[in-house]
Amino acid sequence: MMAPGRSIDDVGTIACIGAGTIGGGWAAYFLARGHRVKVWDPAPDAEARLARLIEAAWPALEQLDMLEGADRDAWSVHTDLAEAVDGVGFVQESAPEDLTLKRRLLAELDAVTAPEVVVGSSTSGYGMTEMAAEVSRPERFVVGHPFNPPYLIPLVEVVGGEGTSPEVVDWAAQFYTALGKSVIRMDREVPGFIANRLQEALWREALHMVDNGEATVEQIDRSIRDGPGLRWPMHGPMLTFHLAGGEGGMAHMLDHFGPSLKSPWTRLQAPELTPELRGDVVAGCEVASEGRSVTDLVAERDAGIVAIRRLLGRDESPEVPS
Amino acid sequence: MMAPGRSIDDVGTIACIGAGTIGGGWAAYFLARGHRVKVWDPAPDAEARLARLIEAAWPALEQLDMLEGADRDAWSVHTDLAEAVDGVGFVQESAPEDLTLKRRLLAELDAVTAPEVVVGSSTSGYGMTEMAAEVSRPERFVVGHPFNPPYLIPLVEVVGGEGTSPEVVDWAAQFYTALGKSVIRMDREVPGFIANRLQEALWREALHMVDNGEATVEQIDRSIRDGPGLRWPMHGPMLTFHLAGGEGGMAHMLDHFGPSLKSPWTRLQAPELTPELRGDVVAGCEVASEGRSVTDLVAERDAGIVAIRRLLGRDESPEVPS
Repeated sequence: MMAPGRSIDDVGTIACIGAGTIGGGWAAYFLARGHRVKVWDPAPDAEARLARLIEAAWPALEQLDMLEGADRDAWSVHTDLAEAVDGVGFVQESAPEDLTLKRRLLAELDAVTAPEVVVGSSTSGYGMTEMAAEVSRPERFVVGHPFNPPYLIPLVEVVGGEGTSPEVVDWAAQFYTALGKSVIRMDREVPGFIANRLQEALWREALHMVDNGEATVEQIDRSIRDGPGLRWPMHGPMLTFHLAGGEGGMAHMLDHFGPSLKSPWTRLQAPELTPELRGDVVAGCEVASEGRSVTDLVAERDAGIVAIRRLLGRDESPEVPS
Repeated sequence: MMAPGRSIDDVGTIACIGAGTIGGGWAAYFLARGHRVKVWDPAPDAEARLARLIEAAWPALEQLDMLEGADRDAWSVHTDLAEAVDGVGFVQESAPEDLTLKRRLLAELDAVTAPEVVVGSSTSGYGMTEMAAEVSRPERFVVGHPFNPPYLIPLVEVVGGEGTSPEVVDWAAQFYTALGKSVIRMDREVPGFIANRLQEALWREALHMVDNGEATVEQIDRSIRDGPGLRWPMHGPMLTFHLAGGEGGMAHMLDHFGPSLKSPWTRLQAPELTPELRGDVVAGCEVASEGRSVTDLVAERDAGIVAIRRLLGRDESPEVPS
């Protein structure tokens, strides 16, 4: 067992390993939250790209009132790994999604980073158990999976590997939360975690549709953008369907649309809708409703859709059918 | 071939067949757009439920400036089908999702509705070819698939069956568009159309996760709500991934994340990422970008996420990790 050496209030400088879209986005966010950032990236244009990314991100962070105590210029780029992690209180690894590369990189990081420092990985789907296979101190390695852009999307999925210390998982969840993130702490290593499993199912179905000439890219995007995608920022997919059941909620919805789980509406086979699964989903919707009735949730959803449509200029102006 | 008897400017009264969540939502929308509505629903509490639904929907429609010329009380409920469709210029069928029931109901509608009137069906996934199996005039039956709530979500998927007249499909697409809807006109009958194929893949993956204890209902909802769901109202899933590739766009994204299509990130197998599929997706993103560079789209996405987070009160306030 390992207790991280720094309190979350005392992290100070953070190392960002890799400064692509994700690593650079993390750097912008850490800067906004008042940290100094040391970036390691071997690409010759890393510094120029990162400067552009931070410049593009800053106005949005300002609009979210995120910049108290922030110094936009408090970052440096390093090509030597040991130099990049020297003196830092946390490391966020965002290297390309290649298991062999990640394994080697985490082992190198392990060798040069002070032993009490926690290392979070931005991996989109590998488990820490397989990524930390070559490190000496697996206890301080944890997945902290963000979403693009990491400076604006709140979600971070936190999950340890078999060798990760539970205290490190706790510490990472608290650290990201204190940074202003919406943390989902998972107890199990599931490939793709939660959100990527869900959006990957949608993405693969979309690729099949393009592959078979069933829909164009533009139709797929518009079907989500002008359709279900307008509902999900308020309630997510489960509570959204809770409302599709009318006053009977999810129980009515499952009884009414349960048979469609057998329909060829996607290439993905559905699980059997057993009484246990039905019960879990209905009970879960009760928990997620947090005391709001279906009527309350409908009013909340409608207000949200109206506001988003007005916001995006997508009110009643008719579009030309395609 | 059949030419619909009414111009879209001359539809007048509309019949809503079924007044549940979807049929009642259509009724509210048709009323808002200045039509009179005749509702057929055999349930004894249909009138009371519909009154509540219209009352709940009206403020949102008002906020969207949809109510010019609308008479909120211009509706009546009928238990006799012939009476409900008498004198109407369009019929929207929103009966329960049961193929046997739909087949019988469409045949009854066909018998009592004036022959030149178009009948649209709200079916979530049946093809019109199978639903219209027992009608005498299949040429005037067309799918017009809305999303809940039909009075706020713009998307309507329009697709005919084998017997549907192309003029009727055109007419329906123009009619819904003139009503202020975002119409996707499909050339092929695909079970579940487009948006339901996509959201059904996500929903089935979510059910599997609950079934296997991999995630709770609350985690699933939050993973979308605080994660990818904040991006989709702006750009849909394809253009969203176009931006994940950084300045290299979708081409870079596919080359970088292509191998993850082989990963067990969902139970859904991906199609082979052939050069043809890669080309179609990259070219489709160019079309969908409508001249906007990746930098333009990133700025648009960021502004949208910031505005939605502020709108929903989900700015920096940290949440307790779960």
